[in-house]
Amino acid sequence: MSDPIADLRAAIGDPALMLETPEETGAYTTDWTKKFNGATPMVLRPRTTADVSRMLAACNELGIKVVPQGGNTGVVGGSTPRGGEVVLSLSRLNTIADYDPASATVVVGAGVVLAAVHEFVAPLEMEFPVDLGARGQCQIGGMLATNAGGNRVLRYGLMREQVRGLEVVLADGTVISNLNRLRKDNSGLDLKQLFVGSEGILGVITQAVLQVRPCPPARRTAMLAMTDRAALPALLAEVRARLPGLSSLEVLPDDVCQYVSDQVPGASMPFTERFPIYALVEEETEAGAAGHDGFVERLSGLFESGLVADAVVAESEAQSAGLWHVREATGEAIVAAGYSHKFDITVPQGEIPEFLDEMEALAATLPGIKPLLFGHLGDGNVHANFVQTPEIADKPFLAEGPALAKAVYGATRARHGSVSAEHGIGTLKRDYLGYSKSPEEISLMRRFKGLLDPNGILNPGVMLD
Amino acid sequence: MSDPIADLRAAIGDPALMLETPEETGAYTTDWTKKFNGATPMVLRPRTTADVSRMLAACNELGIKVVPQGGNTGVVGGSTPRGGEVVLSLSRLNTIADYDPASATVVVGAGVVLAAVHEFVAPLEMEFPVDLGARGQCQIGGMLATNAGGNRVLRYGLMREQVRGLEVVLADGTVISNLNRLRKDNSGLDLKQLFVGSEGILGVITQAVLQVRPCPPARRTAMLAMTDRAALPALLAEVRARLPGLSSLEVLPDDVCQYVSDQVPGASMPFTERFPIYALVEEETEAGAAGHDGFVERLSGLFESGLVADAVVAESEAQSAGLWHVREATGEAIVAAGYSHKFDITVPQGEIPEFLDEMEALAATLPGIKPLLFGHLGDGNVHANFVQTPEIADKPFLAEGPALAKAVYGATRARHGSVSAEHGIGTLKRDYLGYSKSPEEISLMRRFKGLLDPNGILNPGVMLD
Repeated sequence: MSDPIADLRAAIGDPALMLETPEETGAYTTDWTKKFNGATPMVLRPRTTADVSRMLAACNELGIKVVPQGGNTGVVGGSTPRGGEVVLSLSRLNTIADYDPASATVVVGAGVVLAAVHEFVAPLEMEFPVDLGARGQCQIGGMLATNAGGNRVLRYGLMREQVRGLEVVLADGTVISNLNRLRKDNSGLDLKQLFVGSEGILGVITQAVLQVRPCPPARRTAMLAMTDRAALPALLAEVRARLPGLSSLEVLPDDVCQYVSDQVPGASMPFTERFPIYALVEEETEAGAAGHDGFVERLSGLFESGLVADAVVAESEAQSAGLWHVREATGEAIVAAGYSHKFDITVPQGEIPEFLDEMEALAATLPGIKPLLFGHLGDGNVHANFVQTPEIADKPFLAEGPALAKAVYGATRARHGSVSAEHGIGTLKRDYLGYSKSPEEISLMRRFKGLLDPNGILNPGVMLD
Repeated sequence: MSDPIADLRAAIGDPALMLETPEETGAYTTDWTKKFNGATPMVLRPRTTADVSRMLAACNELGIKVVPQGGNTGVVGGSTPRGGEVVLSLSRLNTIADYDPASATVVVGAGVVLAAVHEFVAPLEMEFPVDLGARGQCQIGGMLATNAGGNRVLRYGLMREQVRGLEVVLADGTVISNLNRLRKDNSGLDLKQLFVGSEGILGVITQAVLQVRPCPPARRTAMLAMTDRAALPALLAEVRARLPGLSSLEVLPDDVCQYVSDQVPGASMPFTERFPIYALVEEETEAGAAGHDGFVERLSGLFESGLVADAVVAESEAQSAGLWHVREATGEAIVAAGYSHKFDITVPQGEIPEFLDEMEALAATLPGIKPLLFGHLGDGNVHANFVQTPEIADKPFLAEGPALAKAVYGATRARHGSVSAEHGIGTLKRDYLGYSKSPEEISLMRRFKGLLDPNGILNPGVMLD
């Protein structure tokens, strides 16, 4: 009787490229949130693009399904096995090389951790502008496959905007390699664009050429207090018009700030008074006193507009870090709170106040559920968290989950929003893809999938069923 | 005997949607450079996306080949009929609507002229950052289909970076519509990316949601004179590091400037002395005297580096326009000079000096041919023009064209550059696509073409043969 895994083992040959015992494979079968896990018969650990090509060709031949895996920091169940798939770990493709000062580009393996890119370019006084909380674990290949975002999308865009050249291995082992450093290249279809954000269902990213940039002379931070969240769209328009170097605009309602202050040491608010809602603003400016003064002057214009009731401007990098700490600690505070349903959605920025109203009204129908809503106002990206409070701690974990998801995504659809702002679809949101994309679009996605992976071996069950 | 055009006429019905006499169709059969032209039996002029859908479905059914056409300002022969194709003119899809201040987006029909977008948003104190010489004729649909660039790619990117939502009609008439305004949308494959830059071979773009931005407080311009073009890559790195608001960095060798000064009234250089090469720098800064002083101070640092021998800083908008005039008049001057072979290529920025050496050496082997080389240093984009001087005016127009192209593109390939920086492939560069893309990439392009347009009706002969 045929044993495909035995055949795969024979085809790969080198035992150093395979893990098979549960002790060895365990770390690859559960995601960091512990929410998604499944068994795997084997973890493949290629060292080179040629290894990846050979491995995929063998799996394709043998009909073995494969889950590509980077840092395993995703939150939508896209990188862990579901039903006995082989895991393809890209962690060993971890070379950073060939920094080119004229084009300000660097060639990075898929398995390089984001923080390693930051550290590599820092001594060159350059920076890679994408940054996010998982920086110490998330890998460039996975970040490209999910088109990751972060806090400075407003100014620099998502991963898609940072990539110049890309190398991808298709399901049949074909290597599509174009590691060019070019800012402008309109020679033929821009194939790499289809693989960025494809969540491993069309091919496996093995290397990329990333654009880096000079560090800005200074970043300034302020926390603005507002009395009326209905004015958020007007605030966004004003801030965008007045602050030419705007790099972040985050929104934190008072209840979220109180929650974070209670849960996380040091994450305290800088105001003596309380206001219904706060906006964290970051601008890239000139260095020195002139840069600071200009920032303050531009902000003072916001008071004249009547949109801002109070403001605290960071006078030092330490104060700036303090203001950011409240925003950054939201994740930790929510985890500390216990179980929660998390939604990462986008609505048009002008509709954020009404959308927040709707989310609160929805939570009010769920006894014991507390809504914690915040996010990136500049991008219209709302992180909507529904937390199970201690008063219902004895109840089963959010049995109303699917109904809640339908309600949140239904409200998103009604506003022509996206069911996934920056986290991707994975397995978690697969049933809701149709809330943001039309049947014609989903049909076209399926046709691309069928064309590039006719045997359906790549990340089955992710994005498309 | 079947007459497909008669069948198409019957299927369309409304005569107001068709032009058939040579007097009427003439304007659609020749491009603005007069270099590409061919006969057409019919020009289709849809008024709506539904018209486009119905027309393409009929053509697909009847096996009639179609050339989509926007403002017809391309330079690679991608928008005029080659051998009796029907022309599909998108000019009537010229609605600009639904400006949304919170997201700073606007919904634009494919037939809207670029200048109309600029004019629409100017009263809102916003701007659309893509700008180029053909602004009065080129249309948004064509600009998206060719991923047009322009002078501020360095800061704002190409058309791809400006598009949020897109509506496309496939060859069989299927409408793929997603006119969302979202900055972040990772719900499924980002299908629009494949159509941007696809030159009309995969589908016809009918509408788009474009991102606009606040006008910067001020733009400052300076012309820098250099004694050594080998120092261009070092200059780029210095300028990028010192000028955080850098929005353009153009390079003009002295011979090009002299040529332009001779040909175009008012396009004179601001220096009393001559230098081998000049760089035009534009930075977005604060308004007022402080902004000007900061710009001058940052530039003065370049003198310390020894890279710059002299500089002229514009003290007014009129002076700035004067400096830009020399750069913008290059196109006119080259046309005035008579016949020329034009190449629009990218090489990695660090290799520009060596590439210019190679182009001059190449021109030296061609009697009577003068090379005029300039371009966007910031992007590595070189416009290499080989002009036929009067001394060989009696010879046939550049009979050595194909050999010249092979030499230029061969040098580009050797430096891992692109045979098309921003103009696309069209019919003109089709035979040279393989100089920038691998057989595996071209094969994949063909597979996408076969999937989306199995009957091969859309823009046949463009990009792929």
